[in-house]
Amino acid sequence: MGRVTERRRVLRIRDGAFGHRADTLVAEEPMEIRLNGRPLAITMRTPGDDFALAVGFLVSEGVLASAADVASVVYCAGATSDGGNTYNVVDVTLSPGVPLPDIALERNVYTSSSCGLCGKASLDAVRTATRMPPGDPDLPRLTPALLSALPDRLRAAQAVFDRTGGLHAAALFDGEGTLLDVREDVGRHNAVDKLVGRALREGLLPLAGRVLMVSGRASFELVQKAVMAGIPVLAAVSAPSSLAVDLAAESGLTLVGFLRGGSMNVYAGENRFALEPEAAH
Amino acid sequence: MGRVTERRRVLRIRDGAFGHRADTLVAEEPMEIRLNGRPLAITMRTPGDDFALAVGFLVSEGVLASAADVASVVYCAGATSDGGNTYNVVDVTLSPGVPLPDIALERNVYTSSSCGLCGKASLDAVRTATRMPPGDPDLPRLTPALLSALPDRLRAAQAVFDRTGGLHAAALFDGEGTLLDVREDVGRHNAVDKLVGRALREGLLPLAGRVLMVSGRASFELVQKAVMAGIPVLAAVSAPSSLAVDLAAESGLTLVGFLRGGSMNVYAGENRFALEPEAAH
Repeated sequence: MGRVTERRRVLRIRDGAFGHRADTLVAEEPMEIRLNGRPLAITMRTPGDDFALAVGFLVSEGVLASAADVASVVYCAGATSDGGNTYNVVDVTLSPGVPLPDIALERNVYTSSSCGLCGKASLDAVRTATRMPPGDPDLPRLTPALLSALPDRLRAAQAVFDRTGGLHAAALFDGEGTLLDVREDVGRHNAVDKLVGRALREGLLPLAGRVLMVSGRASFELVQKAVMAGIPVLAAVSAPSSLAVDLAAESGLTLVGFLRGGSMNVYAGENRFALEPEAAH
Repeated sequence: MGRVTERRRVLRIRDGAFGHRADTLVAEEPMEIRLNGRPLAITMRTPGDDFALAVGFLVSEGVLASAADVASVVYCAGATSDGGNTYNVVDVTLSPGVPLPDIALERNVYTSSSCGLCGKASLDAVRTATRMPPGDPDLPRLTPALLSALPDRLRAAQAVFDRTGGLHAAALFDGEGTLLDVREDVGRHNAVDKLVGRALREGLLPLAGRVLMVSGRASFELVQKAVMAGIPVLAAVSAPSSLAVDLAAESGLTLVGFLRGGSMNVYAGENRFALEPEAAH
């Protein structure tokens, strides 16, 4: 609990020069919110203020309106099969007389394998769930020059962003950096789903040898979507989370963050990079 | 369907001068994904490529791996009580022999009132669901100078952002622009829930007279969270979505976007602004 940041080793590339260093990442872990002992929702969050997160979520849902509505908030011991406490399951008990949410509002929503009770469980679930055959672990071959060209191509292809400033974009490139498709959506995960869905309908899955590029940040969820579609490389304009890096490393995905101009950080899968050793610093 | 952008009237403020103009916003609407006729998930998305979004989501969930797994994808007619088609409900039917998701992976997840089947239904649900008494419709009194000072105060208070670049922030200010609390999270909605949850635990709800400021964009979900906590003003560094503006207008919330330096756009609730009429242009 309270792991707001985590450290990971990263390959840093700056205008042709490169070297390894430690990088500070924002921590991301799933948290399950239970109401009177019953699972209600799961959110990917940064650990810390977990009790406030749980009760604040219940304010948004109209369940709580004052501190008196809450009898107790606790971490669930015994959340794992060995009886341990992951500090990723929080149970809110309502005060007597506070009505539970209307049962008519409930839906039976499928919860994805990303929503395990701790990071490790999630990683295991994703690894076993993928139905795509593993691609060549060394393809596509990447160079800093190839990746550096992608953000401008993504931006040039974006149909709506310049007008509203409110859209995320996801683009698919081949191993030579040619743009194959770009989708936009108010949600980054939707933009990726749209890309993958179009590829499925055209019979193009798995997307071996392709590079997925997203505006903004790289969350666990986006790495998971890339892995599930058989995409070997994910590049993001901004920072990845700790769990995104861990899943990428365990899945053999190349994860690139802070891709801007001639600079980028490689957080996992650097085996796909062709680097000139004499340029090391 | 296909409403990627929408137009709204906005009060534009630039270094003291102000005037009304039309602004283009990214469209945001809920979409329900059904699998073999059964509701599975709801996502807030930008309309367009809806069938691709539905099947791409199911690839991410491990349900689909090839086009042959899909028998049909259709918009559900009769999604509303009057038999109309909202084009916000998509049903994917699997080909014979394709297994449905393992029932053991399913959870009974509470779906919030934000997840109606069309924008209008969502707005109605939120309006009726709020348990906070309405605050004074004219408070807090806002000026461009007061709001312009907030982003720097938010940034100065952020504990982690500078180190990781991966965190969103949400801050609560009083009506004079004094910072009361700031929370950070990998998810913007979580940062807001943490703020609201802390306020609830301290007996401070409803947050009448306060200003909520968020890094990044203002989605429907964030406006909803502000309304549910009784917060009258939401200010964002970037763009709002169409549905965020509509909910703000219907709820009496002041919604400010693109708050940068001395510039901002007021999308709803401009009655809280004190503007010098002679500066109009």
